[in-house]
Amino acid sequence: MQQDPPSPRTEVRRLAERAGYDPETIHAIIDAAPFCHVGFVDGGAPVVIPTIHARVGDTLYFHGSPASRMLRLMKSGAEVCIAVTLLDALVVARSAANSSMNYRSVVVFGTARLVAEPAEKVAALRALTEHVLPGRWDEVRPVTDQELKGTTVVAVGIEEASAKVRTGPPVDEDDDYDLPIWAGVLPLRLVPGAPLPDPARRGDIPVPGSVAGYVADRPPTGS
Amino acid sequence: MQQDPPSPRTEVRRLAERAGYDPETIHAIIDAAPFCHVGFVDGGAPVVIPTIHARVGDTLYFHGSPASRMLRLMKSGAEVCIAVTLLDALVVARSAANSSMNYRSVVVFGTARLVAEPAEKVAALRALTEHVLPGRWDEVRPVTDQELKGTTVVAVGIEEASAKVRTGPPVDEDDDYDLPIWAGVLPLRLVPGAPLPDPARRGDIPVPGSVAGYVADRPPTGS
Repeated sequence: MQQDPPSPRTEVRRLAERAGYDPETIHAIIDAAPFCHVGFVDGGAPVVIPTIHARVGDTLYFHGSPASRMLRLMKSGAEVCIAVTLLDALVVARSAANSSMNYRSVVVFGTARLVAEPAEKVAALRALTEHVLPGRWDEVRPVTDQELKGTTVVAVGIEEASAKVRTGPPVDEDDDYDLPIWAGVLPLRLVPGAPLPDPARRGDIPVPGSVAGYVADRPPTGS
Repeated sequence: MQQDPPSPRTEVRRLAERAGYDPETIHAIIDAAPFCHVGFVDGGAPVVIPTIHARVGDTLYFHGSPASRMLRLMKSGAEVCIAVTLLDALVVARSAANSSMNYRSVVVFGTARLVAEPAEKVAALRALTEHVLPGRWDEVRPVTDQELKGTTVVAVGIEEASAKVRTGPPVDEDDDYDLPIWAGVLPLRLVPGAPLPDPARRGDIPVPGSVAGYVADRPPTGS
């Protein structure tokens, strides 16, 4: 991970040895995260909102109600910063100062464009559904024209982006290794529980493939 | 959760029935999240950074290197937006449009102050260590004066804050309930794996209480 950053503001300045700028690393982290945070500026002040994203090629898609402030600002060309973060482990060092976390994170800077063309809009909604729950698009009732009209979709190109990844054991002060203090890594995983059928169901329907086969923890592939 | 918001910008406008403004709800979500995202404005553009937080009473603490851009801006009084988000479940509806996630989230707006007074600084570092891994502060090598000097700590008051929580099954269109499509909730939990001792250890030390007793999934208490 020694490539040059695509722009000055994507350059990771703190702990630069953890940085990566190659699309494979960036895409793998984006794809593994169930949701992201979008930052924008409203009236001069920063605002951060959690939201669902999906990637198609070099494009990130977001969707929601036309009444959403975030989407209204995005479709009017406001600059955004998209942060995607996966927590992989607690790094348990011999001192508080060297304690840390193992994580995979991506930051994307850009401006959005409104997705108005119906075919791209449907493809984006499909990608968003499939991102959250792979296989679900073909199981659900097809999207209606009314739903399509009532949903705003915006796209942001993944052009200015950087990844930051920490892996491995703690790095302690030389003198601390002799202390009788346990150190190591405590891995963390997101795991699904048993599916809970809708209490309002009108008959018993088997748990579908998307839900039965869901893998919440998508391990690092690009780091 | 029908209180009035503390300021216009904390008012949850979309899906307002999911909003909460009481400190108990807000504090429980903040305490349950292992990390947060901090948004700020740098050169007019939004920036979002994942970081560790800890709460003491009505105050959020953040720490890091004096070289951190985020902390330099925070200690100079820049406005920040702190987003804390916990994903609890996938909400699997009969249509893509009604599919959703169950989550607990908090947004805090504010400006930071530098924490310079040594006693508050140590208390903040203790809170940060204990937030990540309860019980760890008393197990690690005590913090040194050099570490204290080499760490920037900032505080943000939890005054302008709102919570947004979704729980429960999907809400489908009336006509969709008769479709032969499974719907329900797929719970997600963050769980620890087996602790991995540091390969650089110089002797075998038992796994300490903080690591052995770690509970990654801190269930909703305030919602």
